[in-house]
Amino acid sequence: MDTHSTSKTPITLLGLGDMGTALARAWLTAGHPLTVWNRTPERAEPLAGEGARAVATPAEAVASATGPVVLCLLDDASVGEVMDGTDLNGRDVVNLTTNTPAQAQQRARWAEERGARFLDGGIMAVPSMIGRPETGGYIFYSGDHALFERHREALAAPAGVKFVGKDPGHAALHDIALLSAMTGMFAGITHAFALVGPEKDLDQTRFATLLAEWIGAMSGAAHGIAAQLESGNYTEGVTSNLAMMTAANDTLLATAQDQSVDPRLLTPYMELMRHRVAQGHGDEGLAGTVGLLSSE
Amino acid sequence: MDTHSTSKTPITLLGLGDMGTALARAWLTAGHPLTVWNRTPERAEPLAGEGARAVATPAEAVASATGPVVLCLLDDASVGEVMDGTDLNGRDVVNLTTNTPAQAQQRARWAEERGARFLDGGIMAVPSMIGRPETGGYIFYSGDHALFERHREALAAPAGVKFVGKDPGHAALHDIALLSAMTGMFAGITHAFALVGPEKDLDQTRFATLLAEWIGAMSGAAHGIAAQLESGNYTEGVTSNLAMMTAANDTLLATAQDQSVDPRLLTPYMELMRHRVAQGHGDEGLAGTVGLLSSE
Repeated sequence: MDTHSTSKTPITLLGLGDMGTALARAWLTAGHPLTVWNRTPERAEPLAGEGARAVATPAEAVASATGPVVLCLLDDASVGEVMDGTDLNGRDVVNLTTNTPAQAQQRARWAEERGARFLDGGIMAVPSMIGRPETGGYIFYSGDHALFERHREALAAPAGVKFVGKDPGHAALHDIALLSAMTGMFAGITHAFALVGPEKDLDQTRFATLLAEWIGAMSGAAHGIAAQLESGNYTEGVTSNLAMMTAANDTLLATAQDQSVDPRLLTPYMELMRHRVAQGHGDEGLAGTVGLLSSE
Repeated sequence: MDTHSTSKTPITLLGLGDMGTALARAWLTAGHPLTVWNRTPERAEPLAGEGARAVATPAEAVASATGPVVLCLLDDASVGEVMDGTDLNGRDVVNLTTNTPAQAQQRARWAEERGARFLDGGIMAVPSMIGRPETGGYIFYSGDHALFERHREALAAPAGVKFVGKDPGHAALHDIALLSAMTGMFAGITHAFALVGPEKDLDQTRFATLLAEWIGAMSGAAHGIAAQLESGNYTEGVTSNLAMMTAANDTLLATAQDQSVDPRLLTPYMELMRHRVAQGHGDEGLAGTVGLLSSE
């Protein structure tokens, strides 16, 4: 029985892993009536003690939903399995399950076939950042824009929201593109720490501050790359071109060797730059290397 | 003939490539008496018109120096060639020539053998950023700390200064470590743009802003890595561990395949993370991967 007297949008949440549980707490804290279901019912018990209504089956959860039905399950296959046998007709489905853009697009068609509206999300946060706006975590959304606007306030309770397009795959695409860029940055940072690690008289804490500041400043290169990709002119506004960077790479590699550091995290991109220079495009900026990664 | 009536430290600068010329202009603008030499004398002519004194030989430049002798030459071998036959006894040598840490250390011994004091620098800027403090460019210095303090004001005219240790190799090491990390970040950004590139209805400019903000925020991971490396405890304070990141990599790779993007820039680091997880250290943070790059 729902004892809430609030006017806040009721939320139905399926999936109480670490992320689902963090989302649940954020909605409870913000005063949203919350119905939860989890395959392992024990995960719902603490939340029930905090005011959530726990139900026994996905079908029951969906049938009683009067607001968005939020899915935060293990993976896209779990969405199909869990939702099999539920009646989605007329429902607002918000899928926060980790997926690829193609899976999100397929899931949007699947929802449409069942008479549901569909919004897909990509969470740019770890569970400990949910419900804590000061951490800067946020969630990308794409798909049904009217659904997003209708539930915007409720969706914004766990973390900031950014709508990135009507293509339901675009939230996942943004999510994964940013995580991919981060993976490259982490590789570079790892190489940097390996280089300085053997130096006993070098202050790692100060080095980390210099490194983070430098990376933060240089991340602005993304703006130049976007401008070049949009104009199709890869030499405009270039301050450090591929030929200059390729020449500097010899010093980076010699230093790695001197410090006994395997350069394998950096060499693939160095080779990509060198390849573009060899094609006669040494005067280009980084945008000149983007197309070399695409097989079409 | 020096017609300056200023009390500012006189500078002697050898090497007028793009960077040397930018440094020269910054010192002239700041009112420092400047003596210049370049192998190709034509490069010195415009600067002579702006108040620099151009001399014909490195020996003459060094012999007349009353302040720091700054070297900004093609490479470390050029330093040996150009300075052969000069009398460095008693001079303050500031080497801004691009080099490796080992080359800087050897050059410090070379200077000491000749009776000179030695400071090595690593320039974290392109020539267009020199003399423009608002760009955030700066120069790492290491080696003779007294020399650095004595000429600090003069050294700070072209760009900010950061002294990073008495080991003369540490300026170059910081420089190259930061450039290495940047190379990894550029690789990640390139992969990210390749992923979103085929999407015609995706705003690249907005994407670049989201990407730069994300990278800037996530660069703070460097602090956590430094803390872990210093404590030797690679599991402390971990919010997203190697096992979680390795699991997420499958989604990154599937998306790359769907978008026809070759994942070769990211796979070496993904493999390094997987290797560390396979060693039984899935609960560690990124610090756990640093040692895997070192051959000793």
